[in-house]
Amino acid sequence: MFTLFHCINTRSFRCLWLLETLSLPYELQVIPFPPRVKSPEYLELNPLGTVPLLLAEGIRMTESCAILQYLATFSGPSDLAVSPGDPEYAAWLNWLHFGEATLTFPQTLVLRYSRFEPEGRRHPQIVDDYTQWFRSRLKEIDRVLVDQQWLCAGRFTAADISVGYALMLACRIGLGGSLSPQLTAYWQRLQQTEGYLRAIAAQGTPVQ
Amino acid sequence: MFTLFHCINTRSFRCLWLLETLSLPYELQVIPFPPRVKSPEYLELNPLGTVPLLLAEGIRMTESCAILQYLATFSGPSDLAVSPGDPEYAAWLNWLHFGEATLTFPQTLVLRYSRFEPEGRRHPQIVDDYTQWFRSRLKEIDRVLVDQQWLCAGRFTAADISVGYALMLACRIGLGGSLSPQLTAYWQRLQQTEGYLRAIAAQGTPVQ
Repeated sequence: MFTLFHCINTRSFRCLWLLETLSLPYELQVIPFPPRVKSPEYLELNPLGTVPLLLAEGIRMTESCAILQYLATFSGPSDLAVSPGDPEYAAWLNWLHFGEATLTFPQTLVLRYSRFEPEGRRHPQIVDDYTQWFRSRLKEIDRVLVDQQWLCAGRFTAADISVGYALMLACRIGLGGSLSPQLTAYWQRLQQTEGYLRAIAAQGTPVQ
Repeated sequence: MFTLFHCINTRSFRCLWLLETLSLPYELQVIPFPPRVKSPEYLELNPLGTVPLLLAEGIRMTESCAILQYLATFSGPSDLAVSPGDPEYAAWLNWLHFGEATLTFPQTLVLRYSRFEPEGRRHPQIVDDYTQWFRSRLKEIDRVLVDQQWLCAGRFTAADISVGYALMLACRIGLGGSLSPQLTAYWQRLQQTEGYLRAIAAQGTPVQ
């Protein structure tokens, strides 16, 4: 039994999406955002003050995409994982990391310096710099989706959850206009997956 | 045979470190930094304009920590990888991602807005914000190193290369003072590994 500490629509949504897709047993702890400020007691569990935090016996994880990989094979091989012997294994690992390190971090800068910081500490230049960064990185996905429905291995995998969350965040913070028609269609496919719909229900928010 | 596109002392150093540690066959292509500006022909190989780029037959990877994981088991299980059945597997995956997503990205902001941008576009506030971010994240490593020499599994693994590169970068850009004595000792241990020394020799720079 896993316990997932989660803030609505943040990175920990990736983990919730995967847990629901594989119907793994878990307890969900929804905490207010940002946890460092609004749930100071959470710092005892996770001194980083970030979500996700995944706990189970002998397990403690804080990186959303590492959690995706861990859970994708927790009950043995699943369609969400690509095995080391598979020709698509390298691509799968690359997309798993790409979704966070390349596509999500720049968006946190856009958010921070356009909304979260008080007026005097906001910086339109930083917002522009990382909006442009994010847009230029999207081309890498567009290149791949020209002739395939999912990122790799010919099926929906944890890599699509990793990148899919980055698109979800983009649409929520006003960067949805950066998505090509092809990427918009991909994001619509992702929103129709059973696991996505169940994760939205699990966090108690309406489908958009 | 792998081809690694590399800029000296950048993220692609992680891949070089691992290739040398496992004595895997590779060809090294050192390109000037930043490649987008100084090697425009490289954009044909990697439109992202980033390093690393790892190529082999049917393989194309751009995320340094995904490459670590891929190469760590390329020739079968190695001491650098932790297997899914191992109790430390979750911790290993978490550190692999942590090294880049949590520890390296904030440093790129410090670099960008203190050095790379022209005078009028530099921002001491951003530099301060992400210096503080980086320092606060180091505590997570300190917590673990209290009673162990390496991050997980009781031995040097690819996770130490992931995090080790973040410490290498910190020392190069003036954040070395943020390291506790314990972290400084860890970084010294890392610099004494055979693979690190061979990677430094391979890129043709002196040991510091």
